[in-house]
Amino acid sequence: MDLKSDRFLKDRVVPVDVEEKKTVSEILSAFNETSFQSRNLAKCVEIYVKMLKDQNKPTVFLGLSGAMIPAGMKKVVSTMVKHKMVNVIVTTGANAYHDLAECFGVYHFKGSPHVDDAELYRHGIDRIYDTYAEEKKYRLVDERIAQLADKIMAERPDSSPMSSREFLFELGKLIDQEGDIKEKEGSFLWNCWRFKVPVFVPALCDSSIGLALTKHYIKCVNRNTKPLVISQIKDNYEIFQIKMAAKKTGVIYVGGGVPKNYIQQTAYLEGLTGKPGRGHDYGFQITTDRPEWGGLSGCTFKEGISWGKDKATGEFVACYCDATIALPLIVRAVLERLETK
Amino acid sequence: MDLKSDRFLKDRVVPVDVEEKKTVSEILSAFNETSFQSRNLAKCVEIYVKMLKDQNKPTVFLGLSGAMIPAGMKKVVSTMVKHKMVNVIVTTGANAYHDLAECFGVYHFKGSPHVDDAELYRHGIDRIYDTYAEEKKYRLVDERIAQLADKIMAERPDSSPMSSREFLFELGKLIDQEGDIKEKEGSFLWNCWRFKVPVFVPALCDSSIGLALTKHYIKCVNRNTKPLVISQIKDNYEIFQIKMAAKKTGVIYVGGGVPKNYIQQTAYLEGLTGKPGRGHDYGFQITTDRPEWGGLSGCTFKEGISWGKDKATGEFVACYCDATIALPLIVRAVLERLETK
Amino acid sequence: MDLKSDRFLKDRVVPVDVEEKKTVSEILSAFNETSFQSRNLAKCVEIYVKMLKDQNKPTVFLGLSGAMIPAGMKKVVSTMVKHKMVNVIVTTGANAYHDLAECFGVYHFKGSPHVDDAELYRHGIDRIYDTYAEEKKYRLVDERIAQLADKIMAERPDSSPMSSREFLFELGKLIDQEGDIKEKEGSFLWNCWRFKVPVFVPALCDSSIGLALTKHYIKCVNRNTKPLVISQIKDNYEIFQIKMAAKKTGVIYVGGGVPKNYIQQTAYLEGLTGKPGRGHDYGFQITTDRPEWGGLSGCTFKEGISWGKDKATGEFVACYCDATIALPLIVRAVLERLETK
Amino acid sequence: MDLKSDRFLKDRVVPVDVEEKKTVSEILSAFNETSFQSRNLAKCVEIYVKMLKDQNKPTVFLGLSGAMIPAGMKKVVSTMVKHKMVNVIVTTGANAYHDLAECFGVYHFKGSPHVDDAELYRHGIDRIYDTYAEEKKYRLVDERIAQLADKIMAERPDSSPMSSREFLFELGKLIDQEGDIKEKEGSFLWNCWRFKVPVFVPALCDSSIGLALTKHYIKCVNRNTKPLVISQIKDNYEIFQIKMAAKKTGVIYVGGGVPKNYIQQTAYLEGLTGKPGRGHDYGFQITTDRPEWGGLSGCTFKEGISWGKDKATGEFVACYCDATIALPLIVRAVLERLETK
Repeated sequence: MDLKSDRFLKDRVVPVDVEEKKTVSEILSAFNETSFQSRNLAKCVEIYVKMLKDQNKPTVFLGLSGAMIPAGMKKVVSTMVKHKMVNVIVTTGANAYHDLAECFGVYHFKGSPHVDDAELYRHGIDRIYDTYAEEKKYRLVDERIAQLADKIMAERPDSSPMSSREFLFELGKLIDQEGDIKEKEGSFLWNCWRFKVPVFVPALCDSSIGLALTKHYIKCVNRNTKPLVISQIKDNYEIFQIKMAAKKTGVIYVGGGVPKNYIQQTAYLEGLTGKPGRGHDYGFQITTDRPEWGGLSGCTFKEGISWGKDKATGEFVACYCDATIALPLIVRAVLERLETK
Repeated sequence: MDLKSDRFLKDRVVPVDVEEKKTVSEILSAFNETSFQSRNLAKCVEIYVKMLKDQNKPTVFLGLSGAMIPAGMKKVVSTMVKHKMVNVIVTTGANAYHDLAECFGVYHFKGSPHVDDAELYRHGIDRIYDTYAEEKKYRLVDERIAQLADKIMAERPDSSPMSSREFLFELGKLIDQEGDIKEKEGSFLWNCWRFKVPVFVPALCDSSIGLALTKHYIKCVNRNTKPLVISQIKDNYEIFQIKMAAKKTGVIYVGGGVPKNYIQQTAYLEGLTGKPGRGHDYGFQITTDRPEWGGLSGCTFKEGISWGKDKATGEFVACYCDATIALPLIVRAVLERLETK
Repeated sequence: MDLKSDRFLKDRVVPVDVEEKKTVSEILSAFNETSFQSRNLAKCVEIYVKMLKDQNKPTVFLGLSGAMIPAGMKKVVSTMVKHKMVNVIVTTGANAYHDLAECFGVYHFKGSPHVDDAELYRHGIDRIYDTYAEEKKYRLVDERIAQLADKIMAERPDSSPMSSREFLFELGKLIDQEGDIKEKEGSFLWNCWRFKVPVFVPALCDSSIGLALTKHYIKCVNRNTKPLVISQIKDNYEIFQIKMAAKKTGVIYVGGGVPKNYIQQTAYLEGLTGKPGRGHDYGFQITTDRPEWGGLSGCTFKEGISWGKDKATGEFVACYCDATIALPLIVRAVLERLETK
Repeated sequence: MDLKSDRFLKDRVVPVDVEEKKTVSEILSAFNETSFQSRNLAKCVEIYVKMLKDQNKPTVFLGLSGAMIPAGMKKVVSTMVKHKMVNVIVTTGANAYHDLAECFGVYHFKGSPHVDDAELYRHGIDRIYDTYAEEKKYRLVDERIAQLADKIMAERPDSSPMSSREFLFELGKLIDQEGDIKEKEGSFLWNCWRFKVPVFVPALCDSSIGLALTKHYIKCVNRNTKPLVISQIKDNYEIFQIKMAAKKTGVIYVGGGVPKNYIQQTAYLEGLTGKPGRGHDYGFQITTDRPEWGGLSGCTFKEGISWGKDKATGEFVACYCDATIALPLIVRAVLERLETK
């Protein structure tokens, strides 16, 4: 019995010592020898470093859900972009919009979930859990986006559809040209524009950017001109080409939703060529969802293997933790590891 | 002290007696006098009945997320459609696709989450938590969708963009014409087509329908013809008109994601007219997410009030429960209540 | 490939039809053919019925955590006791105390979580999520318990320690003698007393019963007499004997905490005899916790198998759902199934 | 409108910059200006530092639930003890037992939740989520505890009951005398013994310590001698005196369960004196539970205020995060803050 049980009892749990371990990287390394979600957090760092050091230079896709900009996470994403830790971003319209808004001086404020929301409404304040924003100022940002759409159409005689990626690129350029100089340093849209990291927003209409484009649409209907068209399928075609061109791929899911699903399905898009699509090689997910409800947001990498979305031989881990805690720590630790190399 | 405390101590908790209460409707009524999530489940029924009996005939929007078809929930949704308990559906591409697939004989099977997913992959079986599907058969469905797109473009000389709603309507017609007669009875797409309930899928590209349309797109690129374009903004314009035309509105969120957000923002779309948009009047959500992560899927109706997405004077409740349990019970209880009237 | 994949694709998901399925039992039967948590809810019923019909008459242990009495669940538990659906209960001090309190006219009231708790405090109102209780009246119940302890010690010359089970039996008798006649019908303590179902509260001191006994203790210290002693280890010895006498065992965990762990460890207690302890044969858990945090409350039956707490050949299921929804439905469905036999 | 809304819009969210912020303390300080759970994590540090610097020297109670020793967290708790960051610990029998076991060379090992538990059982390996232990070796530890109980009774002629605190103190002494020298440095039981920090385990019988004491009990029954009695109510009396003696109190809840409830009720114990009990002054909780189920483990400090368990004027926060991530970070950051003072 003992001989056999030995193979299960090889690696001791080593208690983490926070008097001895001091830096973020040291503590997250020590978490490799602890248990539960701290160990999974450590594995995210390990897999991320491996992904970045792989000589085949995997294309790294980041799926970014949740209200990450009001949460104060835009500089963490920008750091990832600037340090070439991510090659493609798929995100929500809200994240793109809030990032843009801050570049135009529309900030987010610390608030409380225990508040009279009817009173906030009377004061024109929008609440995102424990964070506030000014409704009126948001509407000014919408106007700029609508004008950008007008301008694009004026310069686009064939009025052919754009992908969301192309439109997001235009927003990046808009920030570059007209955004607040100090704010844009932290903007992930601007950094993506600068460093040529494509940003996809498959459900663009489902956000204030969508509202702004609807404003533009109504105007066009009224004056009987052609409105800007965002073609989702063009997005698919573009990301399909990116996947095809990649030797290997790594994925990072911050939350679930469309960004996660959209990156998962790139292996399927590749399958449209007739040859079987290649699953992702590396991946980690930071989530607070769970698999038992059967939804895509909570599904595991293990499940993804059955579909061929992820390789059976790949390296994957999920860390069940709020992203506003886990993501900055992971990125900080990876920075330290890459430096020390 | 006692006099004042009296106003807090008016309604006693009444223990539910399952020997006495027998029908689903009786038990869910009894839950009005219990606590925690059972009371919230009871409130969903109360609010739903109120919504349906309101003399202003509110337009009822259903946001449907999660893998509801593999979960065996399509007939519940169809019942809602057939009994005019819902007027507009916003859902995911996956739900539309799986519903369509079953009409063409591609079924879902009971499986287990504790399985070797690499083995499933080798057998061509896709896993959705505890449910299986056959990969190869899915691909046949894709082919039909791609052909539908080809056909639409052949008949659409101006090649103007379609809304997702228009395309989903075409899929409903396809089911009517070519779907398995026995299967289509339960199909929510077919019932929506039959009863003229619009179905929006804002993130249509993010699904196997999107894959099929990409297949069509690649073919068009290769033969240098114009591909079908799904215009998200046209969707916005259409749902904006529906919202404008409604005297009152009620919302049902099964899960979160794009379907929930998209319905929430209809009040904002209405605001594009210059007048302030009107928040929803009634609503209930069935969710397993929570507000503390700050994401849209877990946000509360209370938060929605600050934005004006929901009326401060409206009636709303969230029930924290897996939808595969809560939704059938709610619909069953509402049916019983409507009958007894 | 197809031949092999067939074994995975045997049982189709059958959509639940709430127009056709009407009773609780019918709907929960239909859930056997759906997915996610509805299927697990159905399995709870299946396993419970099997447990009750097993010719070896398994001893059924119920672990009852959470504020089930303020939640209005006491009659559901009483139904289980009266119909011999449970043989031993392990619960928290709070559940025993709240049940007792209601027998003495101290009720629970429907409230709201969105309230000024400082104001409640000033009015002497205790809040349990969305339920209220009157602080002052609780204290009167404490006094009765303290007096019972005084009386017991007066009649117990050897002042030997009692198990919590013995003390709970005395509380059942107290309800029988002095409790409100109408209220006691629903009391699970009274029904357990009547039907000789032992009730264990391993952490008795951690509740208002504990407060009352501390009051008694202080009085004894002050007048230098021997206080009542509740011996936890005597509880262990008693439940050990129950386990030893059982041919087979089934377990029901409503929530986690001490009640769950205490029932799990009965197999271990049995191991103290020198022979290996026998794991449980049947079990279901209703929980909202999850395994990823490594705690006992969220641990799975699968994990229990490694310890020998549960038999590898046993039948077990967890349903992730609030107990105030799942428990009444399960008990109602089991009643219907047993009747129809 | 603007003037009024200003009061809501005072503190901007400041994006965290992980290129600039490097130490754990710096990042956790920066989290004061972000949102969602990162901000709550920051507040835990702020409240903890305030608690420790309060000139009234609050008595700090730590409620420790969950499998913290197999998780590798014992040194973090020991650091808290050694640096006088905690004055009283209330925990589970499992935490005390696992800490003791490691002092006697019975370690925990890194494992996987995706494993055949029946195979583990055959190999005598117990699984705690992703961690393994050796069943056989645990039983040797039980024997030592049973012998300690024998020895205590031999030396205790009046055979009066012990509190769990007294018994835990004896275990601390046992570690000091017989434990592995290298291992005991990290043991929280040994450090508590050394630094005279009382450790309460209200549900001592519900653990392997309880099993060992039951072994002792059976032996006593067989040879007709008096067994060791652990009196829960004596625990209450002791912690009541600690609460009475404290000018102020702070509480830390790692998880929920009995440890949390037991610390909460100390204010109530104080109320037994006739004067109203004083609620706690400071507190933070690290939890993955939630309030919507109505259970004690997930209840909020806000709810505690209605009961008088927590002061309306106190400072409290809950951080929804796995403790194996949050606790080491908080303790590390507090160490840095205290040093820099």
